[in-house]
Amino acid sequence: MEKVREIVREGRRVGKEDPRRVVHAFKVGLALALVSSFYYYQPLYDNFGVNAMWAVMTVVVVFEFSVGATLGKGINRAVATLVAGGLGIGAHHLASLSGPTIEPILLAIFVFVQAALSTFVRFFPRVKARYDYGILIFILTFSLISVSGFREDEILDLAHKRLSTVIMGGVSCVLISIFVCPVWAGQDLHSLIASNLDTLSHFLQEFVEEYFEATDDGDIKEVEKRRKNLERYKSVLNSKSNEETLANFARWEPRHGQFRFRHPWQQYLAVAALLKQCAYRIDALNSYLKSDFQIPKDIKKKLEESLRRMSSESGKSLKEMSISLKKMTKSSSADIHVLNSQSACKTLCTLLKSGILNDVEPLRLISLTTTVSLLIDIVNLTEKISESVHELASAARFKNKMKPTASLKKSDSVSIGRAAVPIKSHDSDDHVVTILCDADVSNTVDQSRGETSVDSCHHVAIKIDDDDLVHEKHEVGEIHAHSCVSCDPSDVLDSSNKRISSSN
Amino acid sequence: MEKVREIVREGRRVGKEDPRRVVHAFKVGLALALVSSFYYYQPLYDNFGVNAMWAVMTVVVVFEFSVGATLGKGINRAVATLVAGGLGIGAHHLASLSGPTIEPILLAIFVFVQAALSTFVRFFPRVKARYDYGILIFILTFSLISVSGFREDEILDLAHKRLSTVIMGGVSCVLISIFVCPVWAGQDLHSLIASNLDTLSHFLQEFVEEYFEATDDGDIKEVEKRRKNLERYKSVLNSKSNEETLANFARWEPRHGQFRFRHPWQQYLAVAALLKQCAYRIDALNSYLKSDFQIPKDIKKKLEESLRRMSSESGKSLKEMSISLKKMTKSSSADIHVLNSQSACKTLCTLLKSGILNDVEPLRLISLTTTVSLLIDIVNLTEKISESVHELASAARFKNKMKPTASLKKSDSVSIGRAAVPIKSHDSDDHVVTILCDADVSNTVDQSRGETSVDSCHHVAIKIDDDDLVHEKHEVGEIHAHSCVSCDPSDVLDSSNKRISSSN
Repeated sequence: MEKVREIVREGRRVGKEDPRRVVHAFKVGLALALVSSFYYYQPLYDNFGVNAMWAVMTVVVVFEFSVGATLGKGINRAVATLVAGGLGIGAHHLASLSGPTIEPILLAIFVFVQAALSTFVRFFPRVKARYDYGILIFILTFSLISVSGFREDEILDLAHKRLSTVIMGGVSCVLISIFVCPVWAGQDLHSLIASNLDTLSHFLQEFVEEYFEATDDGDIKEVEKRRKNLERYKSVLNSKSNEETLANFARWEPRHGQFRFRHPWQQYLAVAALLKQCAYRIDALNSYLKSDFQIPKDIKKKLEESLRRMSSESGKSLKEMSISLKKMTKSSSADIHVLNSQSACKTLCTLLKSGILNDVEPLRLISLTTTVSLLIDIVNLTEKISESVHELASAARFKNKMKPTASLKKSDSVSIGRAAVPIKSHDSDDHVVTILCDADVSNTVDQSRGETSVDSCHHVAIKIDDDDLVHEKHEVGEIHAHSCVSCDPSDVLDSSNKRISSSN
Repeated sequence: MEKVREIVREGRRVGKEDPRRVVHAFKVGLALALVSSFYYYQPLYDNFGVNAMWAVMTVVVVFEFSVGATLGKGINRAVATLVAGGLGIGAHHLASLSGPTIEPILLAIFVFVQAALSTFVRFFPRVKARYDYGILIFILTFSLISVSGFREDEILDLAHKRLSTVIMGGVSCVLISIFVCPVWAGQDLHSLIASNLDTLSHFLQEFVEEYFEATDDGDIKEVEKRRKNLERYKSVLNSKSNEETLANFARWEPRHGQFRFRHPWQQYLAVAALLKQCAYRIDALNSYLKSDFQIPKDIKKKLEESLRRMSSESGKSLKEMSISLKKMTKSSSADIHVLNSQSACKTLCTLLKSGILNDVEPLRLISLTTTVSLLIDIVNLTEKISESVHELASAARFKNKMKPTASLKKSDSVSIGRAAVPIKSHDSDDHVVTILCDADVSNTVDQSRGETSVDSCHHVAIKIDDDDLVHEKHEVGEIHAHSCVSCDPSDVLDSSNKRISSSN
């Protein structure tokens, strides 16, 4: 009895986690009940007889959770049945020419060679990803058709009936899965990446809070709860196989919602890979949350402002990317946060360079500087993620919508040498915004973030016209091609305002 | 033509990567050719007729690469066919009692309810992992049996024939997969974990080499090659789903080689999870390889000795674990390396505490201290991995074999306050070796490695008798129960030698 109650509880949990599962169960039931009418409805039964079972079988095996998976399996099954049926009949015909004693031997050889070859081909990574099921059905159908019975006219009839019932079963699956509360793998992949962006953003925004204030809090339960909430990022660490499966399914799906047939699903995987790299750093960072109690508060305090901005601004930029991904619009609002986090990064380096920590024992600094260095890593990764999301946005032809939801804080950037000026670039009528950090500061920053070039700088060119294929370009180390004038960062804002007015 | 050549090349690559794939393809061909004799061999065909196709179908669908997967699918299929057949006949009987008009309606309702319920149950995580295929076959068989034909004696015959052909097909799959060049999922999982240990060990042993000497090397190609070799660790980052699949398959496998039926496969996953955590740190560490050109050599030099030992000793300990896993023996030789790396860790902290870096700008230290801190993390994780491997060794009843292949280097441990003395513990006749670091040093170490306890220490109790179930115990923070005498670390070696002589 206890067992039953537990199962019911588990069922509720599974259903609550994703209510579409309940709907899917009903859809499968509906499709099966429909297809089994082949047996009850006399005219259909008279036509197909026992072959009606292939329709039932197809529905059971082909009907998957998402449209993409169902379509993929359905098409695989139909094509494989057709091809294998043809080849099977050919093999049967060839064997029957050779006389009754050699026929079974020849057939056995055909089956053996075909099965061995096809099974081996299933190991090819590209085949495995998309056509695994098709090859399985190919082996099955070929074997069944080539060996079953010995009279050819019967076999043609068998192949024909089997193919038509398989197609009927497959079509009813596909129709039900598309038209009754469809679950799109593409949509799921899209949402998964957006939610992963969100999860990491949440960590980065909460992390500093936790880092600087954890010791004050007396309520252990509250702290535990916050920690648990923070550790949601762990789901990102292991989402790779899930993402790849979804991307494979999504490729089969027709246009739906704002997703075209050839939506750039591979680009989602590229974003996902960068997110995972970021999550690895976050995992390392998280392990320092529990260890930092011994760092004197006054030391932490000195760097608090910069660390807070680095973390929260990268968090905000990820959040903006998540929002623009969800809305499927091109947006440059994330760029501003990326710039902010980079400027905070530079402020931090200037601070460190000024010798603010010179009187502190190096040993006491270890975990603090590690935090700093991991955060710098994360800021750099955020930029890469932003670039990758921009690429995705233009490859997927997201709509233009450039309302920046945040502004640069002037006060934070005063101490940084920085040049930002709109200039004309070579191609047509782009407004090019070039942000240059002064050579000295950028040099020291590079040292800690893994680049050897002394005069690298960030060059953001934002195209204004509506051509979907050209997107924001991000280039590093090309400054010498442009004239750079030192100016206030608010220029960046000005130029982005200009952009908004010109795109409206 | 180019296409064909490419396919052949790909085929060669796939076959070379794992030659067992070729063998598997032949095995499938063999099984299919064998089962299709149901059609050629007249007495068999007379008996089963068209039902012989179920045997063919079973072979195609059930025959998987590893024994575990084949057995799992075979058992799932057989049991599901049996149960669903019984229920299907029951449903058919019940419906036939209700008269010819209501019968189809009732049958449709049965099919609908059964399919919807079963489909929903497939979403339960535990069901999905082990019985997904069984439920699929359950839905299939129930639908086919309950609706097909309308005469009950025919149905009994159908169910009986179908069950026996399915079982025949399944049994031939299982027999061929077990007795012809078997591929054991359990063995694969075992080897995968051992090779993951090896991969990480390789990185740790090579990393410091690269870290301290990369700048000297002029040959870019050579450096590239070494880097690529180092980055083999990346395969560990994403092996989770593979490991889980193998563990699921392995559970179905009977005793083979040194693996029992109930081998602790879950414990392998526990080790794998720790290895992945370690790989995340290594990924962060790897990103600093490319950034450290600007750290002055003389600064690096100061810490070189300790860093070298930390990294290479943790590497060696992972190597030892990998070897003892491969040989399936209990071994304490890894423990010695763990202790060595911990002692190097303490030396490093003492060095840092002595103010060796006080005159260096903090900014220049960032990436150096991050390396230090990540390495400390890794040393700690190595200890956890070692514990986990010990747990695995005793749960899996590995043979005792305690030949330490390495020894403590006396010279490296002189500067560390440390107490190691064999004493009697409470339980029976264990020799307990207690290694204590002096409170001051351990305090500063703890600060950087994430533990708040001031007086934590490592307490290693090694049981000598041959009882397989009790293994080395590792406890932290229990020192106050024992008397601790400061002494030379060579005592540890002495006591482990004692152990060897007593166990031989």
